[in-house]
Amino acid sequence: MNKFKVDINCDMGESFGVYNLGMDEEIIKYISSANIACGFHAGDPSVMDETVKMAVEQEVMVGAHPSFRDLVGFGRRKIEIEPKEVKKIMIYQIGALQAFAKAHNLKLQHVKPHGSLNNMASTDYDLALAIAEAIKEVDENLIFVALGGSAMYKAANNLDLRVASEVFADRAYNLDGTLVSRKIKGAVIEDPTKVKKRVLNMIKNGEVKTINGEILRLKADTVCVHGDNPSAIKLVKELVKELEKNKIEITAMKNIV
Amino acid sequence: MNKFKVDINCDMGESFGVYNLGMDEEIIKYISSANIACGFHAGDPSVMDETVKMAVEQEVMVGAHPSFRDLVGFGRRKIEIEPKEVKKIMIYQIGALQAFAKAHNLKLQHVKPHGSLNNMASTDYDLALAIAEAIKEVDENLIFVALGGSAMYKAANNLDLRVASEVFADRAYNLDGTLVSRKIKGAVIEDPTKVKKRVLNMIKNGEVKTINGEILRLKADTVCVHGDNPSAIKLVKELVKELEKNKIEITAMKNIV
Amino acid sequence: MNKFKVDINCDMGESFGVYNLGMDEEIIKYISSANIACGFHAGDPSVMDETVKMAVEQEVMVGAHPSFRDLVGFGRRKIEIEPKEVKKIMIYQIGALQAFAKAHNLKLQHVKPHGSLNNMASTDYDLALAIAEAIKEVDENLIFVALGGSAMYKAANNLDLRVASEVFADRAYNLDGTLVSRKIKGAVIEDPTKVKKRVLNMIKNGEVKTINGEILRLKADTVCVHGDNPSAIKLVKELVKELEKNKIEITAMKNIV
Amino acid sequence: MNKFKVDINCDMGESFGVYNLGMDEEIIKYISSANIACGFHAGDPSVMDETVKMAVEQEVMVGAHPSFRDLVGFGRRKIEIEPKEVKKIMIYQIGALQAFAKAHNLKLQHVKPHGSLNNMASTDYDLALAIAEAIKEVDENLIFVALGGSAMYKAANNLDLRVASEVFADRAYNLDGTLVSRKIKGAVIEDPTKVKKRVLNMIKNGEVKTINGEILRLKADTVCVHGDNPSAIKLVKELVKELEKNKIEITAMKNIV
Repeated sequence: MNKFKVDINCDMGESFGVYNLGMDEEIIKYISSANIACGFHAGDPSVMDETVKMAVEQEVMVGAHPSFRDLVGFGRRKIEIEPKEVKKIMIYQIGALQAFAKAHNLKLQHVKPHGSLNNMASTDYDLALAIAEAIKEVDENLIFVALGGSAMYKAANNLDLRVASEVFADRAYNLDGTLVSRKIKGAVIEDPTKVKKRVLNMIKNGEVKTINGEILRLKADTVCVHGDNPSAIKLVKELVKELEKNKIEITAMKNIV
Repeated sequence: MNKFKVDINCDMGESFGVYNLGMDEEIIKYISSANIACGFHAGDPSVMDETVKMAVEQEVMVGAHPSFRDLVGFGRRKIEIEPKEVKKIMIYQIGALQAFAKAHNLKLQHVKPHGSLNNMASTDYDLALAIAEAIKEVDENLIFVALGGSAMYKAANNLDLRVASEVFADRAYNLDGTLVSRKIKGAVIEDPTKVKKRVLNMIKNGEVKTINGEILRLKADTVCVHGDNPSAIKLVKELVKELEKNKIEITAMKNIV
Repeated sequence: MNKFKVDINCDMGESFGVYNLGMDEEIIKYISSANIACGFHAGDPSVMDETVKMAVEQEVMVGAHPSFRDLVGFGRRKIEIEPKEVKKIMIYQIGALQAFAKAHNLKLQHVKPHGSLNNMASTDYDLALAIAEAIKEVDENLIFVALGGSAMYKAANNLDLRVASEVFADRAYNLDGTLVSRKIKGAVIEDPTKVKKRVLNMIKNGEVKTINGEILRLKADTVCVHGDNPSAIKLVKELVKELEKNKIEITAMKNIV
Repeated sequence: MNKFKVDINCDMGESFGVYNLGMDEEIIKYISSANIACGFHAGDPSVMDETVKMAVEQEVMVGAHPSFRDLVGFGRRKIEIEPKEVKKIMIYQIGALQAFAKAHNLKLQHVKPHGSLNNMASTDYDLALAIAEAIKEVDENLIFVALGGSAMYKAANNLDLRVASEVFADRAYNLDGTLVSRKIKGAVIEDPTKVKKRVLNMIKNGEVKTINGEILRLKADTVCVHGDNPSAIKLVKELVKELEKNKIEITAMKNIV
């Protein structure tokens, strides 16, 4: 019988200049893949370098976390944009982070779009394809991290890119596989016991209960966690313990997909 | 007897958003190496992509033209900066352009710092070394384009980087090899006949007359030209004709150093 | 019998750093009100100062032309934004330009939102109201320049702000008073004779033919013209001559509304 | 006998987008004048609005804290700049904040340049004069906050501007009135007892001991304090208590100069 495996990914390197954000030094101990901001919604060259360095020291794999160019909005606002322009801002940002990886004798493992761009490209195939093309042209071995069943997941498959199906530990799902909007009650699951149970169910049985109680089938290659505050860190710590208790191996996504 | 060879380089891709700068489509016909802005003093991902594409079509080699982060000042203002931060902004920008080169199946040939950073690093060895280290860590085969005899030239040699000694067709020199400040009368040489004669003298005899009439020895691997206005284009056209008349081969710097 | 009066407005001060845009020194001779960019989509403090100075010398009234913060997109892209944030970016930009006006012993006359923000607020009443509130709180005597019948026009009326109904010389209209999208054939009217005839009809009879041939009633307090290229300048020159021939007084909007 | 009076000023509103900086809600309880960032080194329109609102509620006077345009460097780096450009970036930023003050029915009280610009203009009279001119042209009643004896203080006097002589509670002085560089040991005074004693001596006797033990005469119109961390807050709290014990009135600088 095959042992279950899963990757844990977290957004990192989102400080900028004198501004600090995220408890990167804490959360990095519990994850296997770091999504590093590339300067468009957060991060600057110094932060990128330090974050890659920290990942190398902690033996965590590194990926690009590119975004719209929107520092003041932290990449969380919808911006009207042509697919061909998205492709170019992806190439730019992936390349920038790739150079820091190279400087630390590392290869980039993956790409996970940030915030509003991730949301938009999850349902807009043209945007998704533009991102997939950018990834393929910069390095065809990169893994595209995409919500399972999303337009990004399809675009990755259509271009024969490696793709990791991402699940969210603490977010409610709709039946079509999209996340319930944060504006709706019940969108975020805060009870740690519930979170752990859901994640186990996703990994072992490939399913999760939607916000309306239906069963949604999904594939859990990588679980997205957060490291912004002490209670988020605590939740991840507990989740890791639960996975270990259940003999589920936590390993970088490159060992899974 | 060996035939003389020289590279001709020009700054390009310095448009931004709706703003156009430079007659790139004209000047590219006469040069062998393009220094492409990387988004910090000029250029944006779309401009970078188009400029690399144009260089590929014209069989012109491509290099990074990184700068201080200073769009409003076009990278022409001195900014107080630590060498370790310079290293990181270099890695970032070189990486970004490298990804566009990769997307067009091209390898970056060289790196030439822009504007005020170039001036500062020509005399500040710590800055020069930071740039050289960045280049080496991103790709040890990249050529560092540096004013002959400058701190950058020395740093490149000390790190065993390939280095191209750059000369300026239309700028007066001091005896220590630095360029005469544009604020001083006679700093820019406008007479095309004089320009052509100087360049030939630099290539064939490895020397140029300083602003005070002394003889300065230098090595002319690559000549810097400009493409901002019709008279600059005309000057380059005449220079190219003069070089051809003198059987001097114009070829990318990778064939020279 | 009352003589007809109309204002002519044009966007100006849209250069940035070394980048020049627009033939400001030409077009300013033919207009009565200048909409000056405030640094968010274009313009920088030096450009703002020079543009206000030029307007003072040419006895042209000055207004703010605030925008989304989007230099690379020139304020032309839709950005998802809360009305309360729009209010604050308006206050910021109007205040910045107001200070340059004060430094030149001038009072701001008007505010005209730029590009995508103008389009969005023309149909979104909440955004329109946020802009109107910002204007009122900074200086209740400012005139809000708004497409006649738009949500901005209504918001201005509801807050008892002075409002100037803007018409477009060279753009086709829909029956609801909105402009035909530039993506649709026939959206831009290029024939100078037709443009002149349309403008006269708008001023004298308060009506224009829509793209489908219906009659649309509108009020023409101020006509928007462009100064980006020689043929635009020529068109404005001809329009001014036509207005003079028809004894229509060209005067700043403060003398009209 | 006249009662002693002093103003306490603190930099505020230095958050940006999602990034928080400074314990503004704590420190504002102990100060009489707030220096509010204007978007160039920190602050955004929403932060500016909230900070002005908070100051109004706490009956604290408001001033502009303009800077070089350098978000990534937090305005702490020297940037080569012409005095005429400094004048324009000052006008822009003061105007922007002035509009938020107006929206809250408040008048700006003062202007205090930030960081590196403050340091440079303290010894460079041309920069100092450019700032003074900007202040005068935007609102001749504004108070220029300047290190006593600095080039800024002189420029303010030469233009007949109101000027407040600023002292630093926790910084060592040179005999020429400049602050000892933070790079030198002893530049920052951390012992609260010493800080309180120094401030009292400055206010009551108009003098302070320099780092070398000499007596420096100075005028203490306003004392600069910090609110970045809990121990800074604690120090200010103690200082305020000490001033009250000594019957020194804490009042906005407009009541002093």
